[in-house]
Amino acid sequence: MSSVTSLHAPKGLEGVVATTSSICYIDGEQGVLAYRGYDIHDLADHSTFEEVCHLLWFGHLPNPNELKVLSQRLAGERKLNPSILDLLRLAPKHALPMDVLRTVVSALSFYDPEYDRNDHDANVSKAIRLTSQLAMIVANYDRIRKGKSVVEPDRSLSHAANFLLMLNGTAPSPTAERALDIALILHADHELNASTFAARITAATLSDMHSAVTSAIGTLKGPLHGGANEAVFKILQKIVAESADPVEYVKAMLAEKKKIPGFGHRVYHTEDPRATHLRKMSRDLGQSSGDSTWFEYSQAIENFIKTDKKLNANVDFYSASTYHVLGIEVDLFTPIFAVSRVSGWTAHVIEQLDDNRLIRPRADYIGPVYPQKYVALEKR
Amino acid sequence: MSSVTSLHAPKGLEGVVATTSSICYIDGEQGVLAYRGYDIHDLADHSTFEEVCHLLWFGHLPNPNELKVLSQRLAGERKLNPSILDLLRLAPKHALPMDVLRTVVSALSFYDPEYDRNDHDANVSKAIRLTSQLAMIVANYDRIRKGKSVVEPDRSLSHAANFLLMLNGTAPSPTAERALDIALILHADHELNASTFAARITAATLSDMHSAVTSAIGTLKGPLHGGANEAVFKILQKIVAESADPVEYVKAMLAEKKKIPGFGHRVYHTEDPRATHLRKMSRDLGQSSGDSTWFEYSQAIENFIKTDKKLNANVDFYSASTYHVLGIEVDLFTPIFAVSRVSGWTAHVIEQLDDNRLIRPRADYIGPVYPQKYVALEKR
Repeated sequence: MSSVTSLHAPKGLEGVVATTSSICYIDGEQGVLAYRGYDIHDLADHSTFEEVCHLLWFGHLPNPNELKVLSQRLAGERKLNPSILDLLRLAPKHALPMDVLRTVVSALSFYDPEYDRNDHDANVSKAIRLTSQLAMIVANYDRIRKGKSVVEPDRSLSHAANFLLMLNGTAPSPTAERALDIALILHADHELNASTFAARITAATLSDMHSAVTSAIGTLKGPLHGGANEAVFKILQKIVAESADPVEYVKAMLAEKKKIPGFGHRVYHTEDPRATHLRKMSRDLGQSSGDSTWFEYSQAIENFIKTDKKLNANVDFYSASTYHVLGIEVDLFTPIFAVSRVSGWTAHVIEQLDDNRLIRPRADYIGPVYPQKYVALEKR
Repeated sequence: MSSVTSLHAPKGLEGVVATTSSICYIDGEQGVLAYRGYDIHDLADHSTFEEVCHLLWFGHLPNPNELKVLSQRLAGERKLNPSILDLLRLAPKHALPMDVLRTVVSALSFYDPEYDRNDHDANVSKAIRLTSQLAMIVANYDRIRKGKSVVEPDRSLSHAANFLLMLNGTAPSPTAERALDIALILHADHELNASTFAARITAATLSDMHSAVTSAIGTLKGPLHGGANEAVFKILQKIVAESADPVEYVKAMLAEKKKIPGFGHRVYHTEDPRATHLRKMSRDLGQSSGDSTWFEYSQAIENFIKTDKKLNANVDFYSASTYHVLGIEVDLFTPIFAVSRVSGWTAHVIEQLDDNRLIRPRADYIGPVYPQKYVALEKR
């Protein structure tokens, strides 16, 4: 071991404070989430995703002029190199959307005008570009894989509305635009979650922003992280397909020792404040669309798990039914998580590089005793 | 904070034991590096990269039959989907080789026959496939960007020899083959270095092997990690181009507060045992090629920095002159590090998943006090 006193951390670094950060405040006991001190409920009720991006990247909520400037910069980056579309066309039909997103975002580095810069200003520009481009990639990809034509961006629309336009080919209703906007706000950042931590480790070798965001996408993919919302919906789909009783269905899953995705959280020991908003959104969208099945099944499962397992719904649980009622394909749920979280990933990379140190822990060696006697190949 | 007692870790997680591992033993005080208990000097002197891969993935050195089976599996994976070559051709000329490698390895997931499996056996197969394919991608890419034709693999050759054949178009001399083989052995694993840590974090969300290796490549790219060998050689090149005195040149760099890459290490407080081997290799290859300039300049810099700064050369310092004398382009030095380290990354992913827990630490919030009063946009 090194001469520095070793701290043996709990498995999975649970409870270990790995860095200081000014971006995200979480109180897991009180169910508080705040970006730079602003409560997530205020932001979800009153702000837009563009305002939240400004808050994350520049440290304060924008005044009207600052918001206009940032919105124009985001809209101005609604363009992709034609080779990126070629790459989307190259992906085989069976490819997983998160694998495609990870690959194509990695390829964005080829065409980034500041690909060889890693300073603060260049990284703010890359944050804006990546946030704009990620949404376009997800929308374009969904249309390309369905054999539909790519939809041109509308630079007069909000980030959320433009995404839905490019995904669906028609401008969204104000209700749908606002619902997605709130979902983007709720998912924008969450302190040192696994994908953000991976992004910071990548950035801390003085690699680059695209490498860091690529690491984050690959990390978000897993069902113990962003992949959970997709897993939740697949269960709801099966319940509907089999005309099963939702509570009996999850009881059977539990009897088979299966985990129910969308419940429990490493950090929250009370209700995840994002779940509060998404539950309401799922209910409202269900009512306005005339199909409350998904919300009702979700609520039945939530009530049962809360009583039986003492576990709270997390951000992934009601995002599943919310996205479905918005008409989004199940395998785009996790990519849309990335469309939002890229704002937080990039903010964390900028913060990491402003006061950088290589992130390099140690392992406790428990393998064969050193030294093992080397025996020549022919005598083994 | 969570109810779990918080451990405030030193910056960069220095000295923090983040996991147990049976793969790599390092004694930073004694200058010991061992894979599964076998000293790196024994492995570099007596084994091959294929034997080391077996040791890393299966936990023991192979007997002759096991080695034959693994060598055949590695050679059998010397094939790439034609779309991967299309993607290599799509990368613009100015793209950084590590950006290309990260993107193309990510795209390999599209064509992996087990892309939707994440169990132990599938991941061992992916480790073999990725190790075989990474070397081919680096070699093919270098030829494609130079407008040369791609060289077909020779499945009768060792991993090192086949790589040099596919890179240069001619089979290597036994000296060159052995030199690269030793370099691959020396770089194969190094406990929880930043890229391996990133790979384990990605894997721990139950994402997949390709995501984990993609994270690792993006992390290795940075000049505080794998990118250092390239940085070392660029200094040597400038010294030669300017006919400068090597010691005066680095003195001038130090006077400008510049860091000299290739010196010092987070873990070693004595000589990096890999540097011992690479120094010897650099010297021997210089002598046999009739051009000892690169070795001599390197040694002059090493002696000065060791005396003046009390810093030891690390793995990156002599790999620069070694790879150059082997005829490898400077911007392939870090990709070749990845060609070796993929064996360790994949071993760590397999180990992580055999006893998995999400890796999710906390941050110490130091931003604006919660709660900040939300002021409506028009009043800001």
